[in-house]
Amino acid sequence: MISGIPFNKPFLTGNELHYIKDAVESGKISGNGKYTKKCQQFFETKYGFKKCLLTTSCTDALEMAAILIDIKPGDEVIVPSYTFVSTANPFILRGATIIFADSRTDHPGIDEDQLEKLITPKTRAIVPVHYAGSACDMGKIMAIANAHNIYVIEDAAQAIDNYYIEGDKKIPLGSIGHLAAFSFHETKNIISGEGGMLVINDPNLIPRSEIIWEKGTNRSAFFRGEIDKYGWVDLGSSFLPSEIVSAFLWAQLENIDGLQTRRSEHWNSYYNFLKNWAGQKNVTLPLIPSYSDNNAHIFYLILPTVEDRDKLIQRLKALAITAVFHYQSLHKSDFFKHQYLGNELKNADHYSDCLVRLPLYQELTEETIREICSLIVS
Amino acid sequence: MISGIPFNKPFLTGNELHYIKDAVESGKISGNGKYTKKCQQFFETKYGFKKCLLTTSCTDALEMAAILIDIKPGDEVIVPSYTFVSTANPFILRGATIIFADSRTDHPGIDEDQLEKLITPKTRAIVPVHYAGSACDMGKIMAIANAHNIYVIEDAAQAIDNYYIEGDKKIPLGSIGHLAAFSFHETKNIISGEGGMLVINDPNLIPRSEIIWEKGTNRSAFFRGEIDKYGWVDLGSSFLPSEIVSAFLWAQLENIDGLQTRRSEHWNSYYNFLKNWAGQKNVTLPLIPSYSDNNAHIFYLILPTVEDRDKLIQRLKALAITAVFHYQSLHKSDFFKHQYLGNELKNADHYSDCLVRLPLYQELTEETIREICSLIVS
Repeated sequence: MISGIPFNKPFLTGNELHYIKDAVESGKISGNGKYTKKCQQFFETKYGFKKCLLTTSCTDALEMAAILIDIKPGDEVIVPSYTFVSTANPFILRGATIIFADSRTDHPGIDEDQLEKLITPKTRAIVPVHYAGSACDMGKIMAIANAHNIYVIEDAAQAIDNYYIEGDKKIPLGSIGHLAAFSFHETKNIISGEGGMLVINDPNLIPRSEIIWEKGTNRSAFFRGEIDKYGWVDLGSSFLPSEIVSAFLWAQLENIDGLQTRRSEHWNSYYNFLKNWAGQKNVTLPLIPSYSDNNAHIFYLILPTVEDRDKLIQRLKALAITAVFHYQSLHKSDFFKHQYLGNELKNADHYSDCLVRLPLYQELTEETIREICSLIVS
Repeated sequence: MISGIPFNKPFLTGNELHYIKDAVESGKISGNGKYTKKCQQFFETKYGFKKCLLTTSCTDALEMAAILIDIKPGDEVIVPSYTFVSTANPFILRGATIIFADSRTDHPGIDEDQLEKLITPKTRAIVPVHYAGSACDMGKIMAIANAHNIYVIEDAAQAIDNYYIEGDKKIPLGSIGHLAAFSFHETKNIISGEGGMLVINDPNLIPRSEIIWEKGTNRSAFFRGEIDKYGWVDLGSSFLPSEIVSAFLWAQLENIDGLQTRRSEHWNSYYNFLKNWAGQKNVTLPLIPSYSDNNAHIFYLILPTVEDRDKLIQRLKALAITAVFHYQSLHKSDFFKHQYLGNELKNADHYSDCLVRLPLYQELTEETIREICSLIVS
């Protein structure tokens, strides 16, 4: 009988400590060193991202994005309500008003068909979140944004190594919006504990991005020998991670294909073990839209009611298996509810109440997943 | 003959990689884990700091400080001009106007006697920087700040394990201001590549600090079992570092006394080898004020002219020894010069022109320092 299954478990792929030692020995562990560059080049090459800059978190990547597109008081930014606080906070820190959008009926991603009616002359950006790594309908979103001259910032925190499918083309998530933010938090497919990355696809935004990343200085240009002396030229923050973090991340990225394969196997095991039961019990398994590939980031269930969901979490907890709910609708949070002026967001509230995430990490085995599923359906 | 002496070299004290592995194996490498708590408790116990929160950088600690004291457009914040951009940027990001102060004549720290005349009804905070780790006259600064009901945020980036001396009392730097920010950047005495810490001494600021640190959520209270569910309650960012960084830092902190002893030996060697020459050549060695202890963070020289300074740097460079200048006056930066309305800041400009920092890191030996000094005086 299984017991003590955490929701998540970090893992070493092999070379993490070796690369950290190498970073120290090679004489540089502050930001923008050898491993930071290796990671950034990896993403630029493998996924065709125009420019990548590692950050200390996905939150920080979104803060960089907000500074980079010059968000100012009075600006409006459209964000799904069913997301983490970090999709909204970075824009509020720059003075923006957040306009919350509802989720789709068929999955927790932003309802693309609602966007048009939320746009006003003040709208500066839309931040679609690829929930569970599954693509939003980026074709639809980009068409709306382009028609209104609005930035699209993909919150790709969960979407590493996933693709938007358009006809017979597979387009990497994170390469479509003007900007995109990724996370390497310990619960993600590829990890460095805390960590993130900003992708800059809009060429107009590239020159300033490195300056904001380096605390508002032109230090990067200085080290490339483009200028004689570096100084303070713009706003900025210390967005770059320690090389200790980047070295750890590089060891993970070297193994991304193997890690993704194993994660997909786990996801498929859950799906296959649970699909009959789910059909009978009115439980919804994750929908992978026709325009999305699957990076197996989260395996979730949507139970019929909040009571059913909480009962399942409690039942698993009694067996020392940790399953967890996810976001609480941000428009109903203590921080935001008094200023929220929009409509009811029924789908966001439904996922807040009824969604549960099952344990998913590298070290799991098919046998363990089978046992977890047996307990769920029993 | 010595050659290839870098300005700085990171170092392992022994347990860094072991603790990182332990963090992974113990199942948590995102922020606020075991090693983060160990580091924070270490500082709270050893130095009597009221509350410590590790951050991804000293820049981020200052950004947290700016959010925590509710800096708003129209507020004024007094900052020395001879400092790193990160002393100013965090307050500008919140909309403040920066009022630059000059350095002292006898050392690069802020001129305490100029503060009173820079204060207006809009002044919200003074940010003294303990340059080279040497204490500002905190007695004077706190008296002025308290008389005007202004916050004092110590920029203690360089001031780890140093003390303000008041009569026969030694008071740890970072424990005096309402808030203080430390750095563990690779050039500092104790390192984690990039890294920092906010110290909250004002008890009124403590409750909100953990919330801002945890992205504006009450997650810390949730994990302490004080509330049932955590949610979005305030502004915030992801200020907490990866446990990978904290585990590295913990290994360094365990050895702080030995590391500081060795660094002091190096500093004293420079001082003794150079003092006669300096006296003859009108070169100034670092002044340790009577109210400051010495944490041996930087060994600097102040040459008579910018030409002398640049010549020395070039001469050492030709011998593969890296000595570097330090800050450029911020009020004259490309970013700020067009909006600067204050007086000339002659001392800041003088240190910008004439100060040079010599190599200083753990691995140096007395013999190497003797040779570097022989080359300087030759």
